[in-house]
Amino acid sequence: VSQLPAGEYLRHGQTPFFRLPQADLHSPSPYAGAGAVLLGIPYDGGTTHQPGARHAPAAIRRVSGLVHSYHPVHQVDVFRKLTAVDGGNVSLPPFDATLVRTVIQREVAQVLEAGATPFVVGGDQTVALPCLRAVAARHGPLAVVHVDAHFDTSGPEVWGDAYHHGTPLRHALTEDLIERGQLWQVGLRASWGQPEEGAFAAGYGSRQVGMEALERRSVPELLAAIRLGVGERPLYVTFDIDAVDPAFAPGTGTPVPGGLTSREALQFLRGLKGLRLVGMDVVEVCPVLDHADITSHLAAALLYEGLALRALCA
Amino acid sequence: VSQLPAGEYLRHGQTPFFRLPQADLHSPSPYAGAGAVLLGIPYDGGTTHQPGARHAPAAIRRVSGLVHSYHPVHQVDVFRKLTAVDGGNVSLPPFDATLVRTVIQREVAQVLEAGATPFVVGGDQTVALPCLRAVAARHGPLAVVHVDAHFDTSGPEVWGDAYHHGTPLRHALTEDLIERGQLWQVGLRASWGQPEEGAFAAGYGSRQVGMEALERRSVPELLAAIRLGVGERPLYVTFDIDAVDPAFAPGTGTPVPGGLTSREALQFLRGLKGLRLVGMDVVEVCPVLDHADITSHLAAALLYEGLALRALCA
Amino acid sequence: VSQLPAGEYLRHGQTPFFRLPQADLHSPSPYAGAGAVLLGIPYDGGTTHQPGARHAPAAIRRVSGLVHSYHPVHQVDVFRKLTAVDGGNVSLPPFDATLVRTVIQREVAQVLEAGATPFVVGGDQTVALPCLRAVAARHGPLAVVHVDAHFDTSGPEVWGDAYHHGTPLRHALTEDLIERGQLWQVGLRASWGQPEEGAFAAGYGSRQVGMEALERRSVPELLAAIRLGVGERPLYVTFDIDAVDPAFAPGTGTPVPGGLTSREALQFLRGLKGLRLVGMDVVEVCPVLDHADITSHLAAALLYEGLALRALCA
Amino acid sequence: VSQLPAGEYLRHGQTPFFRLPQADLHSPSPYAGAGAVLLGIPYDGGTTHQPGARHAPAAIRRVSGLVHSYHPVHQVDVFRKLTAVDGGNVSLPPFDATLVRTVIQREVAQVLEAGATPFVVGGDQTVALPCLRAVAARHGPLAVVHVDAHFDTSGPEVWGDAYHHGTPLRHALTEDLIERGQLWQVGLRASWGQPEEGAFAAGYGSRQVGMEALERRSVPELLAAIRLGVGERPLYVTFDIDAVDPAFAPGTGTPVPGGLTSREALQFLRGLKGLRLVGMDVVEVCPVLDHADITSHLAAALLYEGLALRALCA
Amino acid sequence: VSQLPAGEYLRHGQTPFFRLPQADLHSPSPYAGAGAVLLGIPYDGGTTHQPGARHAPAAIRRVSGLVHSYHPVHQVDVFRKLTAVDGGNVSLPPFDATLVRTVIQREVAQVLEAGATPFVVGGDQTVALPCLRAVAARHGPLAVVHVDAHFDTSGPEVWGDAYHHGTPLRHALTEDLIERGQLWQVGLRASWGQPEEGAFAAGYGSRQVGMEALERRSVPELLAAIRLGVGERPLYVTFDIDAVDPAFAPGTGTPVPGGLTSREALQFLRGLKGLRLVGMDVVEVCPVLDHADITSHLAAALLYEGLALRALCA
Amino acid sequence: VSQLPAGEYLRHGQTPFFRLPQADLHSPSPYAGAGAVLLGIPYDGGTTHQPGARHAPAAIRRVSGLVHSYHPVHQVDVFRKLTAVDGGNVSLPPFDATLVRTVIQREVAQVLEAGATPFVVGGDQTVALPCLRAVAARHGPLAVVHVDAHFDTSGPEVWGDAYHHGTPLRHALTEDLIERGQLWQVGLRASWGQPEEGAFAAGYGSRQVGMEALERRSVPELLAAIRLGVGERPLYVTFDIDAVDPAFAPGTGTPVPGGLTSREALQFLRGLKGLRLVGMDVVEVCPVLDHADITSHLAAALLYEGLALRALCA
Repeated sequence: VSQLPAGEYLRHGQTPFFRLPQADLHSPSPYAGAGAVLLGIPYDGGTTHQPGARHAPAAIRRVSGLVHSYHPVHQVDVFRKLTAVDGGNVSLPPFDATLVRTVIQREVAQVLEAGATPFVVGGDQTVALPCLRAVAARHGPLAVVHVDAHFDTSGPEVWGDAYHHGTPLRHALTEDLIERGQLWQVGLRASWGQPEEGAFAAGYGSRQVGMEALERRSVPELLAAIRLGVGERPLYVTFDIDAVDPAFAPGTGTPVPGGLTSREALQFLRGLKGLRLVGMDVVEVCPVLDHADITSHLAAALLYEGLALRALCA
Repeated sequence: VSQLPAGEYLRHGQTPFFRLPQADLHSPSPYAGAGAVLLGIPYDGGTTHQPGARHAPAAIRRVSGLVHSYHPVHQVDVFRKLTAVDGGNVSLPPFDATLVRTVIQREVAQVLEAGATPFVVGGDQTVALPCLRAVAARHGPLAVVHVDAHFDTSGPEVWGDAYHHGTPLRHALTEDLIERGQLWQVGLRASWGQPEEGAFAAGYGSRQVGMEALERRSVPELLAAIRLGVGERPLYVTFDIDAVDPAFAPGTGTPVPGGLTSREALQFLRGLKGLRLVGMDVVEVCPVLDHADITSHLAAALLYEGLALRALCA
Repeated sequence: VSQLPAGEYLRHGQTPFFRLPQADLHSPSPYAGAGAVLLGIPYDGGTTHQPGARHAPAAIRRVSGLVHSYHPVHQVDVFRKLTAVDGGNVSLPPFDATLVRTVIQREVAQVLEAGATPFVVGGDQTVALPCLRAVAARHGPLAVVHVDAHFDTSGPEVWGDAYHHGTPLRHALTEDLIERGQLWQVGLRASWGQPEEGAFAAGYGSRQVGMEALERRSVPELLAAIRLGVGERPLYVTFDIDAVDPAFAPGTGTPVPGGLTSREALQFLRGLKGLRLVGMDVVEVCPVLDHADITSHLAAALLYEGLALRALCA
Repeated sequence: VSQLPAGEYLRHGQTPFFRLPQADLHSPSPYAGAGAVLLGIPYDGGTTHQPGARHAPAAIRRVSGLVHSYHPVHQVDVFRKLTAVDGGNVSLPPFDATLVRTVIQREVAQVLEAGATPFVVGGDQTVALPCLRAVAARHGPLAVVHVDAHFDTSGPEVWGDAYHHGTPLRHALTEDLIERGQLWQVGLRASWGQPEEGAFAAGYGSRQVGMEALERRSVPELLAAIRLGVGERPLYVTFDIDAVDPAFAPGTGTPVPGGLTSREALQFLRGLKGLRLVGMDVVEVCPVLDHADITSHLAAALLYEGLALRALCA
Repeated sequence: VSQLPAGEYLRHGQTPFFRLPQADLHSPSPYAGAGAVLLGIPYDGGTTHQPGARHAPAAIRRVSGLVHSYHPVHQVDVFRKLTAVDGGNVSLPPFDATLVRTVIQREVAQVLEAGATPFVVGGDQTVALPCLRAVAARHGPLAVVHVDAHFDTSGPEVWGDAYHHGTPLRHALTEDLIERGQLWQVGLRASWGQPEEGAFAAGYGSRQVGMEALERRSVPELLAAIRLGVGERPLYVTFDIDAVDPAFAPGTGTPVPGGLTSREALQFLRGLKGLRLVGMDVVEVCPVLDHADITSHLAAALLYEGLALRALCA
Repeated sequence: VSQLPAGEYLRHGQTPFFRLPQADLHSPSPYAGAGAVLLGIPYDGGTTHQPGARHAPAAIRRVSGLVHSYHPVHQVDVFRKLTAVDGGNVSLPPFDATLVRTVIQREVAQVLEAGATPFVVGGDQTVALPCLRAVAARHGPLAVVHVDAHFDTSGPEVWGDAYHHGTPLRHALTEDLIERGQLWQVGLRASWGQPEEGAFAAGYGSRQVGMEALERRSVPELLAAIRLGVGERPLYVTFDIDAVDPAFAPGTGTPVPGGLTSREALQFLRGLKGLRLVGMDVVEVCPVLDHADITSHLAAALLYEGLALRALCA
């Protein structure tokens, strides 16, 4: 080889998340024995306002090297307890949105087939849909915790397309990837174009916790309701970094003032302890809008919280 | 026309706030039928430390396009309920401070004469004085909520001039634009040069709520006091963005650590629901110091809260 | 109206380029009488590396207000000599690349039908193809000056798609939009993946002037050759800002060190005086990567040079 | 003199902290009569990740000019009550870490000998060790409040050196500079490499208050425990700015999401009122990573709180 | 003293330019024996577009510490040959433009009375007028080299005021501060509003060298003409940093693409060797728009070139 | 393994330069068969002003992925002609400068023993000394092209230490690593502290080409002299990015205005064609001071030019 071909470069040529070993992607069963697999998805073709989330995996990989194994709150030695490997970045054709979804779903399915839990680093939130499809294909209808400033249940009339980063939850609901009443939306606060937009997910029994309600109820109270409601169901977490306030996460394409603090975000994920986490994504980090990498550091910390949840069950 | 003359460019050549229609400023009664008029005032000639607030209207106009009509907390369809129009930027001679005040006062008076509520986007806080003069001329002595890290009641001895961005509240008090006991100062925390500086406004019965007191009392408790105290009086809100902590609002010229969070700022404005809002300004946003537009996004959100208050009464 | 609908906002809600009057787009013949029409195209769906050029029209509109009418080198009063109007931004569906090209071509054709010269502000260089299609449909095969660090003649094998910002010149050549021997590529310097990539355009008689050759020959010598070669042919200029060195134009998605200086770029356009300019675009400005707007200022200056060329013939 | 020699430039050529008078360092007893002396230490040779804290004294000096004398919460006229002087920057040889520690210790000792309280502005946290040595040499074993995201008790095995910014507290404990049971560590939250790392300081009776515990207990409750526990002991505060969340303090080399807010940090220092403060440092501000100086403004505010504590006892 | 009063802080509390000793401003003849005096003028009240030049003295002071005494091209040991002292910043009332001009003129006159050459660091170019008044008062009508992208001869009709940063050369011409035919304007390139604007200075015999002419003639040829034309006359240099291209000097308020390179700027000043320099200013550096201090570094280098010219004659 | 140990992470966990394959560093002869080996050296412990060059290998690795194999000027397919591999980053103890030099020298020696040419990416210029030691140990006294704004021949009296980034050429001369008369210093322009500093290298027959001389002579003339003078000697190139003007390379710790353009820098390296290149380093890139990665892109381009020179001889 002279220079690595694109696919090879995306898979093997990336600095690993959390200084983890890389899966041997030339092996027939690259994820055998892994408890968790991290995948980067450098795709932002579904962005409606400020693109750039395609570079989030690179930025988060870089800063995640500062994270160590021992979790001081859960008191668990995450990377010694859980066999986590880096599956590299998914190799994507950037201009064919349908193919993008197919490729992502196939990659996540491969992780699940190996018995490992996928931790996906977007990219924009478009990538959540194929992840949810793969995970629901394996585990059946899911409980989904959706942390976001926005509903993400837009219809095709808004931007003239049925698929983009404002739509994954709509498809997940209509495709029955989510069990009725098991979509928990946390961090909502953006204004809407039409009064009825808020009703779509509610029509599927979604529990919607806007920031104003969260402030009245407190995070622990919310967590208690979620833990009780989800119970033994397989749980998928899709975390849009814009759920967090722009002060803590300036590096995102559609910021909305008045969001979660970094501490609330971490506390929230820690409080999911005991639930059966079967997959997670962190999306919408846009490094070119970040400052001093604080958004990427936070995204790495959120992923680490997810991995810690998984390690507690390992 | 080849190129628009300066005045025309400032009035008709600006991207509208919140994607609103522009008032037809060539008409004899441009604001007829409007419930609210937004005016940009690109003036920062009264800045003592870091200038640049003259560019705030442009920045806030640009990002405010992301705000939609339906308010999820108040459950009001703001721009369908309230006829809001953009009056463009006020055309100012930049080097004659006295004339600047005259022009602003005249423009705001024109809005009021049309029966509309003025929402003013500074500029530095110098612009609050002519706004208050115009509003008080119409409504009589006002109740004023002044959200700020600083008193803004400096005397001429400090900078050798009686008028600049540290003085508008002093003039408003001495000119009886504010009803005695009806100045509510929230967010105060900057250190002072002389012990007695804090006493000026207090001498007029001002209620001063420093950050440390706010923390002890909570925002809802403060709001209850303000609602009770203001009652049916006409209320003007002047919001200096430096009341908010620099983490949430780095784009301002005289930042003071330890301020409001974005959520407290939004919650505070929402809590004025029910009061009779007759005018509002948001000032001291300095875009050149901002990062990823987070300060401008917040300023747009604060204006939207003011408009929502007005819509609730429409 | 409460808030402007998207299309209306893109057309009428933008700060005008160069403080020009806006075309009345509600009129049946909005461009009647215009000598030049400026169009923004906020599209970057064809970007392979760092997206964000969708925000270039807004940034260039904003800074172009500092440009005045009288051109000191050509000694022409550009905006008094030439009736230039702002046609707003083209309203695009962001996720359907085929439709995007159709819409752009239709808009540019409308400008041409009115007898005006289109000046297009991208967006990524994908937008050059539909512009070339519209202009060639009216004027026949064109002479094209292509200022760029890259060939932009990639085939579908590189990114798995026949249309993106690395391909417009390939299509323009194969569709005979360019007269054989009349593609002038200036500023080339990026390394290539395969030796044969350089041969594609050359096979159509393209004249390729890499930076190293330009340095040996000087800009005036190059201009003499172009003027002689183009003669009376209709000339289209497509200017990728990455032709300029990153020091002068940091705000672009695929920077290549060693490019044109700002003075060479301006001198080059000035030297096209006397040729028959029938259209021009400036593309690949990515504001989020810019600093102190220097790239946007340069892009505005380049557009102004194009307008001056057109004014000289008006 | 033509240009000032390096040492002279560092001592006399710096803009003074808080607009204070400079000590006459050519006098034999430069600090005579001073109640507090501020010293800048432009050293970051002990940084493990992102260096640059050497420029913190310059940045904090610059912004501290905005701080005024009267403290609105403590209601004390700080700089009129307390005679504070600026001792300039310590003149350091940048490449000899052992000599650096010696020089710092000597300078701080000189301040103490004059009966003044040292307020030290790092530099990285390496500088805390020689400060503690000097202060303990005068006052005996100390009570130390260590505000930090990290333990700073690393052993030599981590980076192959016994002295760097991750080690000062280890040395302070082993050298008995801190009274057993009197190390109060606040703000801890970073993950560790090995489970046992948390145990080192605990083995010396350190009280460790991680962010998660702080959230459960509240700052006032923590302060009550510290005030009770410290009592009449001489108290030294070493404040690593990374204890604060990156949203409020992005300008630091090893940021950890989930930290103190600026208000908690200020409230915490205010709550030490009544204790016997014998020295303080603020370290790890890295201006090149800061935005709009917000980290430097906060560091200046923290120093001012320390000075106010000292003024209350003056 | 508790905190230094404003005036004292501006004069004695600044990091000195080039690590020079500070003049003892409490002495009755503070500049006695000095060959050159550097003065900062933190004023930008005459800015028409982006203010912030008030902070230039602080930024240039800071970076000028990296400049050493020995000049490698002129082979002169600048600060050993020339007794240069720092006169601090001029203490200005920020809101009274007339008084500002008076104070500046008085300060510069004081330098001249001591027999020293003033080197002034703006501030916006408004400050050039009082400098020219003071220098012409002492030396009679001057030869002036004006390096700038703009004419700076605007009349009061443009911004409604006769005095601001676009006017100093107009006043200097009409007040006969400049000998007829001895205004040399270099770097001109900005477009104008009206064709006749270029004629004002030309009517006084000004020699105007636009960038396009400079490119044709070369810097050495231009210098030969200036040296010949100026001869033994007293020469004042006013250097607006926007003469330099934004790539080399992004930190300025009204950037114009296509300017001098840093090397041309330095070469130009070096080429004034042998002329009788009686004063110089460097203006319009706006640090908040700068990146990595490159504009401030260049401004310091330009001042150093001026000092070297003076040292050659010392 | 849970997380990679530090050494392993530095060697195998880095995104490869230029998308090259990584050497198998677990093999006994990792560089067997390679024509060129790239090594990152993340060390900046020898920096006197602004540190941060330790992060240059990561930044340059990241952007170098945009460079392709075929060189359009030399018309050589670099990475197909030359077997280049990535040797990872050298694993360094950050606080022991002596050990750092030993480790670097050993690593470079290992590359040379395998018959490959080392291409080293600093770090600060301290790293050039051990590289020169290793290369001279193999090839005997070298011809050295030193591109830099500074002499780098400081003695220990300047910063109190004999080894830092201002000293490597002094040691290289005194240790006879460089053949007498074969040090070619290009780009010099910084002012010096003492007149005699320029004489040190000259005393060893160094040819010093300051920027001012370069401008008079042109790059091709200089290259002719170097080619003639070096002849068949083994040539080492040490390239300090601060030789380039800050406009093109803002990301460096001690910028000096008036340097090389990016085109001159590239042209200069291309002109070394035909000489026997035995090693090269590119140093002093400081990413935290960079903007839009333009300095890193340039550094990658300079390395690519070096690799192309080597490929031409492969």
